[in-house]
Amino acid sequence: MAPPSIPSATPSAAAVTPPAAVEPGRLASVYSELQRSRLDQALPLPSVLRKPFNVVDGPKSSAAGNPEEIEKLFPCLFGQPSASLVAASESSLSSDLKLKIGVVLSGGQAPGGHNVISGVFDYLQDRAKGSALYGFRGGPAGIMKCKYIELTSDYIYPYRNQGGFDMIASGRDKIETPEQFKQAEETALKLDLDGLVVIGGDDSNTNACLLAEYFRSRNLKTRVIGCPKTIDGDLKCKEVPISFGFDTACKIYSEMIGNVMIDARSTGKYYHFVRLMGRAASHITLECALQTHPNVTIIGEEVAAKKQTLKKITNYIADVICQRADLGFNYGVILIPEGLIDFIPEVQQLIAELNEILAHDVVDEGGLWKKKLQSQSLQLFEFLPRAIQEQLLLERDPHGNVQVAKIETEKMLIQMVETELEIRKQEGRYHMHFGGQSHFFGYEGRCGLPTNFDSTYCYALGYGAGALLHSGKTGLISSVGNLSAPVEEWTVGGTALTLLMDVERRHGKFKPVIKKAMVELEGAPFQKFASKRGEWAINNRYISPGPIQFCGPVSNGVNHTLLLELGAQS
Amino acid sequence: MAPPSIPSATPSAAAVTPPAAVEPGRLASVYSELQRSRLDQALPLPSVLRKPFNVVDGPKSSAAGNPEEIEKLFPCLFGQPSASLVAASESSLSSDLKLKIGVVLSGGQAPGGHNVISGVFDYLQDRAKGSALYGFRGGPAGIMKCKYIELTSDYIYPYRNQGGFDMIASGRDKIETPEQFKQAEETALKLDLDGLVVIGGDDSNTNACLLAEYFRSRNLKTRVIGCPKTIDGDLKCKEVPISFGFDTACKIYSEMIGNVMIDARSTGKYYHFVRLMGRAASHITLECALQTHPNVTIIGEEVAAKKQTLKKITNYIADVICQRADLGFNYGVILIPEGLIDFIPEVQQLIAELNEILAHDVVDEGGLWKKKLQSQSLQLFEFLPRAIQEQLLLERDPHGNVQVAKIETEKMLIQMVETELEIRKQEGRYHMHFGGQSHFFGYEGRCGLPTNFDSTYCYALGYGAGALLHSGKTGLISSVGNLSAPVEEWTVGGTALTLLMDVERRHGKFKPVIKKAMVELEGAPFQKFASKRGEWAINNRYISPGPIQFCGPVSNGVNHTLLLELGAQS
Repeated sequence: MAPPSIPSATPSAAAVTPPAAVEPGRLASVYSELQRSRLDQALPLPSVLRKPFNVVDGPKSSAAGNPEEIEKLFPCLFGQPSASLVAASESSLSSDLKLKIGVVLSGGQAPGGHNVISGVFDYLQDRAKGSALYGFRGGPAGIMKCKYIELTSDYIYPYRNQGGFDMIASGRDKIETPEQFKQAEETALKLDLDGLVVIGGDDSNTNACLLAEYFRSRNLKTRVIGCPKTIDGDLKCKEVPISFGFDTACKIYSEMIGNVMIDARSTGKYYHFVRLMGRAASHITLECALQTHPNVTIIGEEVAAKKQTLKKITNYIADVICQRADLGFNYGVILIPEGLIDFIPEVQQLIAELNEILAHDVVDEGGLWKKKLQSQSLQLFEFLPRAIQEQLLLERDPHGNVQVAKIETEKMLIQMVETELEIRKQEGRYHMHFGGQSHFFGYEGRCGLPTNFDSTYCYALGYGAGALLHSGKTGLISSVGNLSAPVEEWTVGGTALTLLMDVERRHGKFKPVIKKAMVELEGAPFQKFASKRGEWAINNRYISPGPIQFCGPVSNGVNHTLLLELGAQS
Repeated sequence: MAPPSIPSATPSAAAVTPPAAVEPGRLASVYSELQRSRLDQALPLPSVLRKPFNVVDGPKSSAAGNPEEIEKLFPCLFGQPSASLVAASESSLSSDLKLKIGVVLSGGQAPGGHNVISGVFDYLQDRAKGSALYGFRGGPAGIMKCKYIELTSDYIYPYRNQGGFDMIASGRDKIETPEQFKQAEETALKLDLDGLVVIGGDDSNTNACLLAEYFRSRNLKTRVIGCPKTIDGDLKCKEVPISFGFDTACKIYSEMIGNVMIDARSTGKYYHFVRLMGRAASHITLECALQTHPNVTIIGEEVAAKKQTLKKITNYIADVICQRADLGFNYGVILIPEGLIDFIPEVQQLIAELNEILAHDVVDEGGLWKKKLQSQSLQLFEFLPRAIQEQLLLERDPHGNVQVAKIETEKMLIQMVETELEIRKQEGRYHMHFGGQSHFFGYEGRCGLPTNFDSTYCYALGYGAGALLHSGKTGLISSVGNLSAPVEEWTVGGTALTLLMDVERRHGKFKPVIKKAMVELEGAPFQKFASKRGEWAINNRYISPGPIQFCGPVSNGVNHTLLLELGAQS
């Protein structure tokens, strides 16, 4: 007898048919014990969501930058207030309202997405019975092509508190052109949508706001509410203290880093270079450093701010290795953010020059082509390991450009450090044998079972998004705050998306953007790291967080970054 | 104020001084909450160890093969009985005996090693008060060089239930030459050792038996007891049902695989090729397959038995990908054992020929050298991706040999599958875009916090080893059985190491070996896998075990391999 299959949400012909309801008891054959035990985990709600509440407007809002341009781009929405949920003896929201709401997952996976959807669903069940929730399949493309599924209690159940985005899958398409906005409008009309919840990162929430503006300008009733999702942690502000998924992903990576640290200390002969996901910002690397205390941590934002060169970074790592060698330690752990190369100005310069040269010239064996490089770029090129040189020259994308993303930075650094240490050895400044091991932790962290924090936070984000739509709000991002307090005391509301926006000039036009939150070198998390890294470098202060726990006193911790940013003890 | 440091056990000058006792309360700054919570976790002991017992001999033993040769190699020990601990109203073992016992960790890390040591220590505290326990530092080299530390209650405490081997570190040296045996004897005499516990894999336990034989032949009082350690799971037999560390490592890898599976299903566009540690045998890969249900799993022992070629393996993977494409699925997860290449006869042949050619000939650009390859080897060489060809020709070890271990099998297979699918696409047999992602899970699993099973099993192994030494036994391996029953019912004893031995002919001499336990193609674990893999290939039966739990009902599961081999339900 074939066991029941968890519905696969790949946007393929075979998977479009809605699955039959999955009986909870029959999940045994497709779920692990732990997955099953999480299904029925009841989640606490902030107390404001457990009683009658009203949605109260704050003051008129502005923008993160260039308000006059933002006003031009969002004539209907600019200036609208953010909103808070406030306990009331009786709610002014009608429980007779039957809403039709859509929900979409946009961009890369982050643990907790399913709980946002469960939260929206449960809100509708609790406060607007008879409402319908549609899940658009495969990301924003599902909105444009009107590919959706009605989300029922049975359909949602097997995804409660589970990782992944496989309930309705995600996608990276954007609703950008006038035709695409028109398609979205057609879907909204066809489904008679009262609201849409867009779960995504900075780009997707910008898109959500553009859609809210468009629907409003077209006099559609469809409201749009965003939710802050990204493991990278770079979508946050005062009102939205953290994006969901960051907590779980960092804990999964830190578990692995901690294990590797104990291995390094036990074996005593390897330096482990660990590259961590996070291309645009180094929050993940910083958080993992705070959790595990590695010997060296490179933070991209610091590299950029101090205009550090690859040579400088190499020397810094080699210095730590030499100091440790003098103390008798021939092992260590080094953390590197995925996006490191993008933060190094000289590398950007070299790549720009290479793209230019490779587009027009032949790369001759003799190396005459190198004369076209500026002297600083030539110096850097000669400094790079041969394998990386070849990769830069040979592997290009369809546009003929150098593929920076394909460079395995951790392996490159191992080779450069090895070369540097060889020189120091010959000079008598280093006397051990260097062995490097490379790791990349990425896909392992995007779909883990969400931590208790992410499970609860996401559920509140979704439940709150339902409330905002119920009260007729649009163009807000669901905002749950006061997160260092017990869940009962968390605040719930929505922040005007235009408040988070600035403009960027692209192709001669202003484009609205929610600016990515980078690691602040003056912020508490970096400052704490900076005050400790000297000690971590030389002494062995490794901490191994171990696997995420779901029960017991160790299960409810929150990541250091959030606590430090909220001014709480970490 | 500098926080207290967990003593680092690197065999370096700086780390040799015994650390001051670490007060439990002061561990906060070097331990995670979870690590700390594990420190005081009381472990259950099999009931036979909780009451008075006697050590009872079984029948005369033989050998796994060639008993007459084993008898020649072990004239003192051959034929000695295995022993069992049996409950008694009064124990014949004197509690007044003050023993001096040494302990050593040998080879690669495995979660639980610290608990074996804690078990020996607690046995001595409980049953032979006033005894001393010495930890030899850095593996067998510590015995030869008499580098040791006295293990006290305070010294051991911070390592209880913790991963890693950093309490005294490990090493890969062997005691082989007559001079080395002499050094070991000098240490035994110097420390007046009554016994030695050797914690290691097949090689180390063979070494332990040779040492036991040597000490006995020299009329030393020093007894030697082995303990079965290796995450690879290839040291086991009827009496020793599992080596410690396998359970934890497989659960850590399966957590990661499960996360990657959900990512694959959510994203819908990548095939993840996961290489798993385990060079000699594929137990880890098989166990992880049973835990997670991947689309393709390659088991080295099957490849060898069926004399499969690389081309055949490539086609098998491509077939599954094409079948899935026809069903609309463009994603999947594929598990590969680290040692795959060593299992493929044609690859071994090619490498032998290459070593020969490279030793004597110049590799000319034009490829004339290839004429020296036999036709099957030439065909295989031409079939290999270019990067692998270059690696085979360029990267050699100090002896000039091809470095097989450096080949990243998962990346090689991705390239070969990609090429094969490209051909099928042109023939109209495949119509999707193939994207491969590579992973290697290795170091992450060797030093994790031991599972409840490994913690308890190791503690019993160590406690039992103490009892065996107390009763004067030598040349046995600590054996804890009946593992599918509750801990109280576990059996405890020692198996004659000579019983596990066979001989191998090396350099014209017979050498004793404990034969590695390979995956049995007729055994229950492989049979269960084989009966399911067709369904796992096409349908999506992914299971995500999630992070190891230490409390609650989900925390006490045992790995599938062990349960299936014991005939229990899995």
